[in-house]
Amino acid sequence: MTEKILDRLAKELSPRRLEHSRGVSSAAASLAARYGADVAKARLAGLLHDCARGMPNNLLLQAAAASGIVVNGVEQREPVLLHAPVGVVIAGRDYGVEDPEVLSAIRWHTTGGPVMSLLDEIVFLADYIEPGRSFPGVGHLRELAAASLPEALLAAYDQTLRYLLAEGGLIHPATVEGRNALLMKMKKK
Amino acid sequence: MTEKILDRLAKELSPRRLEHSRGVSSAAASLAARYGADVAKARLAGLLHDCARGMPNNLLLQAAAASGIVVNGVEQREPVLLHAPVGVVIAGRDYGVEDPEVLSAIRWHTTGGPVMSLLDEIVFLADYIEPGRSFPGVGHLRELAAASLPEALLAAYDQTLRYLLAEGGLIHPATVEGRNALLMKMKKK
Repeated sequence: MTEKILDRLAKELSPRRLEHSRGVSSAAASLAARYGADVAKARLAGLLHDCARGMPNNLLLQAAAASGIVVNGVEQREPVLLHAPVGVVIAGRDYGVEDPEVLSAIRWHTTGGPVMSLLDEIVFLADYIEPGRSFPGVGHLRELAAASLPEALLAAYDQTLRYLLAEGGLIHPATVEGRNALLMKMKKK
Repeated sequence: MTEKILDRLAKELSPRRLEHSRGVSSAAASLAARYGADVAKARLAGLLHDCARGMPNNLLLQAAAASGIVVNGVEQREPVLLHAPVGVVIAGRDYGVEDPEVLSAIRWHTTGGPVMSLLDEIVFLADYIEPGRSFPGVGHLRELAAASLPEALLAAYDQTLRYLLAEGGLIHPATVEGRNALLMKMKKK
């Protein structure tokens, strides 16, 4: 199963991105073991999370339109963000994935969102901390991920928002909704 | 007219906040003259922008409910944000303001938003740069405000978001929508 997926992914993604996908798969499996999620689902979702990441912007926009995916103003300007919802379609069509939990983790891995399952959170976080990542602060984020899932998720959201502020980039509303929902959940405890 | 408003405001607001309101009024008038907005409206909206800011959280929530103001999850947790929409009601009821442009500037002064008139932008920005403000970077923001309204607005949004990230505070969706809309407008030029 995994071999077949890897063969196909190798045709769709650059070697660098394929290596990243293997890293996210492995990091997601570790986090799943650590936090009591399904390890096999985490491994699969991690491997496939970027399955649509090799598509150029025009094809992402076409695929979104063809699949009835609502494209907001931010995604219209930054179609690369559509690789997450379009990835759900591709994972189903080209990789035979039907498990809604795995598809949900692919759906929310880029922006995060206000309603995240444990598996969604794990794949979202694995995308930041997989072994190939080397941005400033990744060491601290890996330590947080081992110690506290909510604290690590908050740091991941904050890092994305700080990056977008520094770059003058558009902020996806789901990222802010996801961070707000997480903060509210953390304050309740 | 202004004397009557000041008399009433002095009963509703602390001396410090009254002084702030006079500062915003004066800064908004200057910005209006600089950027071609109505100076009298800017002065009035600046003076009244915080007219509901002295209300405690429970009264803000009550007033919002009584006025049919939709309260989102962030405002539920941070009712102080409601002083802007509730301020519109108070400005109409207690200060006799009927001008929709002035009321709109009061409405959007705290969060900003995706559809801002020139007067809305001016009062929003004046709230940051009025003479009484002394946060780090206010000098730079004042210079930007004199040079370029969009650049200054972007810096104001960014400053609010950086502050909320540093504090672990909830982010109001209108702030992100406002910054996104502004960035899109700036890139079009």
